[in-house]
Amino acid sequence: MAIQGPSIEAVTLIDGVAADSIPVTDRGLSYGDGLFETMRVDHQGPQFYRQHLQRLQQGCQRLAISYHAGLLEQELELVLGMLLERPAILKIVLTRGGTTRGYRPDTTQTARRIVTLSTALTDPRPQQLQGVAVRSCQTPMSINPLLAGVKHLNRLENVLARAEWSDPSIAEGLLFDSAGQLIEGTMSNVFLVERGTVYTPDLSGSGVAGIIRSVIINHCAEALNLKVCVEPVLPDRLHSADELFVCNSVIGIWPVIKLDRRRLAVGPVTRRLQQCIQSLSASSGNASQPLSMP
Amino acid sequence: MAIQGPSIEAVTLIDGVAADSIPVTDRGLSYGDGLFETMRVDHQGPQFYRQHLQRLQQGCQRLAISYHAGLLEQELELVLGMLLERPAILKIVLTRGGTTRGYRPDTTQTARRIVTLSTALTDPRPQQLQGVAVRSCQTPMSINPLLAGVKHLNRLENVLARAEWSDPSIAEGLLFDSAGQLIEGTMSNVFLVERGTVYTPDLSGSGVAGIIRSVIINHCAEALNLKVCVEPVLPDRLHSADELFVCNSVIGIWPVIKLDRRRLAVGPVTRRLQQCIQSLSASSGNASQPLSMP
Repeated sequence: MAIQGPSIEAVTLIDGVAADSIPVTDRGLSYGDGLFETMRVDHQGPQFYRQHLQRLQQGCQRLAISYHAGLLEQELELVLGMLLERPAILKIVLTRGGTTRGYRPDTTQTARRIVTLSTALTDPRPQQLQGVAVRSCQTPMSINPLLAGVKHLNRLENVLARAEWSDPSIAEGLLFDSAGQLIEGTMSNVFLVERGTVYTPDLSGSGVAGIIRSVIINHCAEALNLKVCVEPVLPDRLHSADELFVCNSVIGIWPVIKLDRRRLAVGPVTRRLQQCIQSLSASSGNASQPLSMP
Repeated sequence: MAIQGPSIEAVTLIDGVAADSIPVTDRGLSYGDGLFETMRVDHQGPQFYRQHLQRLQQGCQRLAISYHAGLLEQELELVLGMLLERPAILKIVLTRGGTTRGYRPDTTQTARRIVTLSTALTDPRPQQLQGVAVRSCQTPMSINPLLAGVKHLNRLENVLARAEWSDPSIAEGLLFDSAGQLIEGTMSNVFLVERGTVYTPDLSGSGVAGIIRSVIINHCAEALNLKVCVEPVLPDRLHSADELFVCNSVIGIWPVIKLDRRRLAVGPVTRRLQQCIQSLSASSGNASQPLSMP
């Protein structure tokens, strides 16, 4: 059999129909012309569900992709009803749809919806507790304000950066833009703590603005009475920061205890933010009580 | 039926098997993790066939994608044997293959091969003769030397640039990098003629190094005793150049007779290059007499 199906236990709906393949003419394949969201589903439901749907909507606006939000939500409900095991990972991919030849988008087209629910392969809690080792990557991130922040399907830079190491003891790699500024991890956002203040790179030129990052900036800061600054971050600050951590919707917050040759302790601000995220995520799966996002 | 097939007459082989869909887990869809080639097939065969296969090989080396070149060539032969009508368009997509979750490539994996032969929808010859109108696009091209030149599947910038206009009288849009340098067209490379010398933008930071562009640089220059320079090109030169043209493997060379508000004549150097490309392409479908590429 030449075409292989998914190798993990998963259910996929494509435009509402159980399926495991898409047409080769899909613009997601041809051009990376689409967006995605990945979230963790636990006993309370999909964590930060409303925020993910809102970011998807904002990304579609940026790329001028129109989609049927009502059908998508129905399909998400449907697939969540099939949930066999928790925790699970819920992934949404929207592509601009099929194409004949050529880059020009068909403005009358609505997006193809791909919704996949799969069992969580790994438990992120040991690393949340103990922290992780990370490395600096050489692969430069492009600067493009038009695409920056959006979780689109053009992710070759992340792939090439992740291919820089195979040592399983290194959990993540840090990425810098072509001007040398710190941007993010290959699959995560990155935060520094300096004298009690929290900093995370400005993503107006490169990177993906993650949901956990947004929750930290927009909710944890106030809840914990912490100053959180979004600003350009030069790499030398990584070598003097009091605390470092990486975060995303699947792993939560992982403290960094080793960066290249530098060793760090898990710090008190990181621990407080972990507790805040855990507390907020517990209620975020309840769609009737969404956190508001800016 | 939720999933639509291709809307043009086409035959597709996926890893050697007639098929029209790929698994949703394919990394080409998830990350744009792959490459493509598009070439024109006429009565002599696929134009500049060896050059396209060579560029594909070089792109795979850049992205560390391994593929079975022997099987690919067999499949290309097979699909070319099914040819109903000429001219046709032959498209090759190689993706890194399927994935579980995560950016990390599986280095033991070989690429998924997608070979599509379809009828040519349009005839590029009227525009070759009469020339075309082009416009300057606002969408900036990212600068990333690691990906520059490679015909990979991360093409959102081209899509967004092509979405800038819908006027069917405009055939192509010119793209500039975030530093303001001229790079290429949305689907083509661009050349300027100044006092008999031919110039085309350096693509070490952005853009796709097209096959027709390579043939002009490496073969036509010598055959026609023309000086062809590859160098950074600032946009103001577009407004003073004696001749302008865009080129790719499907359209050949299209003289530019209008750029934004500027009107130009089809010039003698452009005509000589068109003749040279036509002459070289006529023999290039013969695999036993390949043009060598640097």
